[in-house]
Amino acid sequence: MNTSMDVLPDIEQIRAAAARIAQHARVTPVLRSAALDALTGAELLFKCENLQYGGAFKFRGACNAVWSLDERKAACGVVTHSSGNHGNALALAAATRGIAAHVVVPEGAVRAKVEAIERAGAILHRCAPTQAAREKMAGDVQREIGAELVHPYADVRVMAGQGTLVLELLRQVEGLNTLITPVGGGGLASGVAIATHALNPLVRLFGAEPSGADDAARSLAAGARVTNMVPDTICDGLRALVGERNLEALDRYQVELITVSDAETIAAMKLLWSELKQVVEVSSATVLAAILKQPQRFAGRRVGVVLTGGNVDLDALPW
Amino acid sequence: MNTSMDVLPDIEQIRAAAARIAQHARVTPVLRSAALDALTGAELLFKCENLQYGGAFKFRGACNAVWSLDERKAACGVVTHSSGNHGNALALAAATRGIAAHVVVPEGAVRAKVEAIERAGAILHRCAPTQAAREKMAGDVQREIGAELVHPYADVRVMAGQGTLVLELLRQVEGLNTLITPVGGGGLASGVAIATHALNPLVRLFGAEPSGADDAARSLAAGARVTNMVPDTICDGLRALVGERNLEALDRYQVELITVSDAETIAAMKLLWSELKQVVEVSSATVLAAILKQPQRFAGRRVGVVLTGGNVDLDALPW
Repeated sequence: MNTSMDVLPDIEQIRAAAARIAQHARVTPVLRSAALDALTGAELLFKCENLQYGGAFKFRGACNAVWSLDERKAACGVVTHSSGNHGNALALAAATRGIAAHVVVPEGAVRAKVEAIERAGAILHRCAPTQAAREKMAGDVQREIGAELVHPYADVRVMAGQGTLVLELLRQVEGLNTLITPVGGGGLASGVAIATHALNPLVRLFGAEPSGADDAARSLAAGARVTNMVPDTICDGLRALVGERNLEALDRYQVELITVSDAETIAAMKLLWSELKQVVEVSSATVLAAILKQPQRFAGRRVGVVLTGGNVDLDALPW
Repeated sequence: MNTSMDVLPDIEQIRAAAARIAQHARVTPVLRSAALDALTGAELLFKCENLQYGGAFKFRGACNAVWSLDERKAACGVVTHSSGNHGNALALAAATRGIAAHVVVPEGAVRAKVEAIERAGAILHRCAPTQAAREKMAGDVQREIGAELVHPYADVRVMAGQGTLVLELLRQVEGLNTLITPVGGGGLASGVAIATHALNPLVRLFGAEPSGADDAARSLAAGARVTNMVPDTICDGLRALVGERNLEALDRYQVELITVSDAETIAAMKLLWSELKQVVEVSSATVLAAILKQPQRFAGRRVGVVLTGGNVDLDALPW
């Protein structure tokens, strides 16, 4: 069994990840908008991971995983069954080390995303469009080729990599007292929560979740992981059910979840494009939607807002 | 007559402008895209003035003009007859000094832009949609209220302000040997040419012009200013005929013009959105279109690319 799947990273692992990815990942800028500050009554500091290499924060975790492997293991390559930003990021990360990336792609996956993964240099493995078929195919590649599985959010190396953005952000801006990220599988939210708590436990942590995929919010409310939910949201990056360890981190560090409708998210996405001038994907806009939905929780605060990605199909905008 | 209209700024005036606007304008980031570098064979360093206060480089010139006025003159406010980004920038700049901005708006101007100018705090003056009516109305406001005319590109204070982005850019990146801006009235291109020539005369200068508004290219080719052209281009920010002094600067500092079709510009705009993740307006995309059209002139070079603005109507994208 893959031991990288059963633990949470600590701050030292996050620091080590930062050193490991430093020469490959970008230090993304923090942008502001006077109009969005006025609209929300808060000071919003947008950490622009849409400008990360590969167009999403996912490169941080994937890159850390790839460069964590010893020489012998690395030679066999890496494998994942994400056909979204993580698959793309893993392919790009593998390329920085000159090793193979195997990406399991279910039939029916968005063609533009699959093409991007192929362009990034991955070896594609097609399978039936079920979770079981994806896991079986990834398992087959692991066994037959010896490739290392890099899970998109449950992997400790991935969580540590995502947490590195907090080290950057707290160097870039002073006086941050609030931080919000989207929550899907929870790789980002857990890495961010661990890093933030270690560096400044007074920072208040929020997560934004689509109401059509609010399994994390329900799980925290119920005190047990909800696993019987069928996601129904336009936010394709946030449809995964939150991982068990990821949920544990959200609970331990008291991440407060706010759920938003797809309509609220689309309106917020438009605001980010028109006011912040950033191309962000719909999942990224949940954070601004959450702030606009519950402004009293953010008013007067200095809020780090993580914009997770900018990989969109310009011919199929949701408005 | 307004003596600010008959001269070009020198580098000392540009340095003074930089000091004058420092506490109001943003230092805009320089962004890169591995994909766009690969596509063009050049190192493209995008100076993101779409992230400038007000969403366009125009704030630099307007702000310099506003803060150049003595107390007595400032008390009477400023006036312009631009209903585009300059009008908006002048309103925002006037607000930083707490003085009035009068903006002459022809009937039929784009409603979204007019509303933005009004939101920025300007006093609107409506007039008939002709150049003569606009100039007459602006003249009336000058005479009756004593407001100072700030022309969008022929004003020396405006040119000096636009030139400040070069001081910033050359501090932000090393080894730049090429620079390209769009050319409309030429306020930006002339200010940039003067500043660049003063700081590093070896930097090669380019301008991008829509083929439907290529009066500057024709003027340089003919050795005399072409004034009988009726602009026909989707690039609403580049429809103005190049100013006399502005043209003089382009000629003196050997700015090489490249003309591009609207279709080429729209394709480049889409690339800037999808690869650089920046919301830029169509006029801003002429520079990338020019590089893609004549790649041999940029290949292997380290190119500063000025992205001029990001004020777009998301409900009316040109693709």
